[in-house]
Amino acid sequence: MKILIYDTTLRDGAQTEGVSFSIEDKLRIVQELDQMGIHYIEGGYAGSNPKDEEFFDRARELKLNQAKLTAFGSTRRANRKAVEDSNMHHLLEAGTEVVTVVGKSWDLHVKDVLRVPLGENLAMIEDSVKFLKRNEKEVIFDSEHFFDGYKENPEYALKTLEAAANGGADCIVLCDTCGGAMPIEIKEIVEATKARINAPLGIHAHNDSGVAVANSIIAVQAGAVHVQGTFNGYGERCGNANLCTIVPNLKIKIGFDCISDENMKRLTNLSRLVSELANLPHDEQKPFVGKSAFAHKGGLHIDAVQKNPRTYEHIEPELVGNERRILVSDQSGKSTVLTKLMRDYPHLEKDSPEVKEIFDLLKEGERDGYQYEGAEASFELMMQRVMGNLESFFELKGFTVLVERSENHEMRSQATIKLVDVNEKIEYEASEGHGPVDALSKALKKALLNFFPELESVRLTDFKVRVLDAKTGTAAKVRVLIESSDGEEVWGTVGVSEDIIEASWEALVDSIQYKLFMNKNGD
Amino acid sequence: MKILIYDTTLRDGAQTEGVSFSIEDKLRIVQELDQMGIHYIEGGYAGSNPKDEEFFDRARELKLNQAKLTAFGSTRRANRKAVEDSNMHHLLEAGTEVVTVVGKSWDLHVKDVLRVPLGENLAMIEDSVKFLKRNEKEVIFDSEHFFDGYKENPEYALKTLEAAANGGADCIVLCDTCGGAMPIEIKEIVEATKARINAPLGIHAHNDSGVAVANSIIAVQAGAVHVQGTFNGYGERCGNANLCTIVPNLKIKIGFDCISDENMKRLTNLSRLVSELANLPHDEQKPFVGKSAFAHKGGLHIDAVQKNPRTYEHIEPELVGNERRILVSDQSGKSTVLTKLMRDYPHLEKDSPEVKEIFDLLKEGERDGYQYEGAEASFELMMQRVMGNLESFFELKGFTVLVERSENHEMRSQATIKLVDVNEKIEYEASEGHGPVDALSKALKKALLNFFPELESVRLTDFKVRVLDAKTGTAAKVRVLIESSDGEEVWGTVGVSEDIIEASWEALVDSIQYKLFMNKNGD
Repeated sequence: MKILIYDTTLRDGAQTEGVSFSIEDKLRIVQELDQMGIHYIEGGYAGSNPKDEEFFDRARELKLNQAKLTAFGSTRRANRKAVEDSNMHHLLEAGTEVVTVVGKSWDLHVKDVLRVPLGENLAMIEDSVKFLKRNEKEVIFDSEHFFDGYKENPEYALKTLEAAANGGADCIVLCDTCGGAMPIEIKEIVEATKARINAPLGIHAHNDSGVAVANSIIAVQAGAVHVQGTFNGYGERCGNANLCTIVPNLKIKIGFDCISDENMKRLTNLSRLVSELANLPHDEQKPFVGKSAFAHKGGLHIDAVQKNPRTYEHIEPELVGNERRILVSDQSGKSTVLTKLMRDYPHLEKDSPEVKEIFDLLKEGERDGYQYEGAEASFELMMQRVMGNLESFFELKGFTVLVERSENHEMRSQATIKLVDVNEKIEYEASEGHGPVDALSKALKKALLNFFPELESVRLTDFKVRVLDAKTGTAAKVRVLIESSDGEEVWGTVGVSEDIIEASWEALVDSIQYKLFMNKNGD
Repeated sequence: MKILIYDTTLRDGAQTEGVSFSIEDKLRIVQELDQMGIHYIEGGYAGSNPKDEEFFDRARELKLNQAKLTAFGSTRRANRKAVEDSNMHHLLEAGTEVVTVVGKSWDLHVKDVLRVPLGENLAMIEDSVKFLKRNEKEVIFDSEHFFDGYKENPEYALKTLEAAANGGADCIVLCDTCGGAMPIEIKEIVEATKARINAPLGIHAHNDSGVAVANSIIAVQAGAVHVQGTFNGYGERCGNANLCTIVPNLKIKIGFDCISDENMKRLTNLSRLVSELANLPHDEQKPFVGKSAFAHKGGLHIDAVQKNPRTYEHIEPELVGNERRILVSDQSGKSTVLTKLMRDYPHLEKDSPEVKEIFDLLKEGERDGYQYEGAEASFELMMQRVMGNLESFFELKGFTVLVERSENHEMRSQATIKLVDVNEKIEYEASEGHGPVDALSKALKKALLNFFPELESVRLTDFKVRVLDAKTGTAAKVRVLIESSDGEEVWGTVGVSEDIIEASWEALVDSIQYKLFMNKNGD
């Protein structure tokens, strides 16, 4: 049984708080979804605004491999003919092969929101589908609030589906619009509906109860053949059902045909790309596609995974284009470090002196409060230093930071820095900044940019501070984790000190060193 | 039927990438979970490290209302007596009323990881439970990898449960350790297990397939009476089952008794507090507890919700202490604030000018990046200031901080401070410190101790920094949260600035002010 996947990232997904896709973003996403093998791509609400109109005009020019583009819209309004209704005309004007028309299945909505007689709502549905079919469209009917409607008035909810079926709908999609349905309810209601309605059924779930993925899967197991959702689960409130989770579950875990094995390997990258285009941080804990999804921390787990990956991994990460990560933390033992090292230096053995030295440094570091999880770049530098593979790009002689708050409450931060550059020359630089770390960072870059123009692109993208020994109060040791990016790669570094400025400085220097090391080694 | 809720935020939740709770954090969380009515709180892995030992020592001193603290550990090792095994002794030494002992239910693990005969594993389980029961503990048995084990060798998996039941386990918890099980499988397997095992069953799900919440709910519907999970779904890889989602689903959606209506209203605040203590951003799209969970963006939805909230809300947000947000006129926290205010000033009305002023300050603060969850003392001060109830204990004229790193890598931090004291006299003080915040804190205390000797006891117990707008790099605004204690009370304060020193200063001053305010008001 082939399950058809319907993506609504560009319409429902764009309802996420803070998200607004440009037309270029949308066109890019359409092409990527097509290459991934998604069957339907909903482009937007037809006729709702000029941006969506322009999108459909340009999307028609795209050469898609297999995906069908769809336009979304409501049924005709009450008490008028479909042919005279602008909703219908907007749907036709979008020029897509497929149209998705949404109608009300909950009598409460018909009465309280539409405020039309129940019979008229049925006519609106049937007429609209019929009109679109007469205009040679493939028609998908989205049955809004179907599950809420069914629970209160099953007979009426089913009649709305029959109206769509009578109109000739090619697929009838049961929507849990408020996201309130529980999995077992979904199972029972989809089964009952399938017994009554003579048309292919689909599912459209929202995540307000945290079970949208489960509801979608269960609906398929109960007979639905079409699944609507968004990439990364974007959507209003708590989001829509997440296709990045549903698709591998259907295919890899349960065995429904939907996306080819080859295309499944694109999943992690495409999920990440959609995050980038939405300008939202990628949720690294997300199933299948997060950076943490196959990351192992506890020493016992790591040992077990190395003996047999099935012991702590429910699928092979490669199937979805992700990878296993062994986190370097105080809970993971020697074997973790070894695995990481061996990847770069396959000639090393468990008892090579370099391995011992790195292991000792790691232990010592962790005792002092370092943590390399999230700071893999600092760990890499430490490793390369021991292996004699890390040249020194500069030598720090000292720095000062002065922060002042004046009587009129103005703040001023300045830093001076003294270092010996690659030509053994003393560099002495100063800078102001927004706060002491910014001032230091600017002074350091100023001192190095002449030799290393590539540093221009480096910026700090995150900064975390953790107090290590709370009992000593403000005199406590702090650990600073810095995340940096040059627009392509992202790396994390760490510094530890009783002095937050020194800890920040240390992480800052590692970040710069790592960038220079990567450039040097063509990484 | 009462469902018992078991929280493992402090053990499994602490496995989240990047999370490490301080002992103070853990003690605070225990108290909050207890107040929320959570039945079991797992404190940590007994005997695994000195930090967990200290935690159990201090946790024993806490007066809990109803929650039972539990210590976690493995069964005895192979081929030795329980009474001679250190695992068992660590569990007893933790001194908790309840212990949770984990054993293997998947034959693959017994063979490949433990490498002991299948029969010996059964004996390890039974002996361990028996030993702990003989020592008068309530014993929960966590059946690791139960579902994977059942799918490959149901007879053996069930035998491991029987071993635990024979040992006298008070509850047997079926774990989906890899998070790979699908909802319908869970239903079938729990039902089959219940028919066979004569002991109360529990469920412990992981979210690797994105269905941990659904699996937990379905397990309860299939007969489990005990649910394990973490706050905010923290945990290794993709996290554990999220109690913040499961509990309201069980109670409000399906009608299982677990947490009182009154306590359910604490859910949103407590979820947010746990995020703060974990130093992770709160996921605002999370069901029930996210800021977006009941936020309405589309105009049609807003209209409909105003006609009848049920049209686009699956539950009333107030039931879980959350609130509806209409995104065009964002007024977050309003009902919370009102409740807080009315408690101290019962004569206030919703439209008193003081209430309006506090709302305005709150809104302005939130726009600037302040956040008062975890910084209730700062909020209290703001409230009391508006109510005219907060006297000024000193007036700051200015400060400087100088941080130097010398050529021999020594760090030195010093601060000077100028303020007007209660007698209108200028105080000018200086201090060195371990880092700039410590130097500032010491200089401030020095200037005030003559007048307020009670400040002697105040110490900073935690210090958290969050970058608010990561994109601007080191020039980003930061929020500093400080936790202080005088040995009896613990309070949190907040500061926001582009300059980490200024933000720290602000939180520091609030902390001191709050202590002086409390003393003055005999609180």
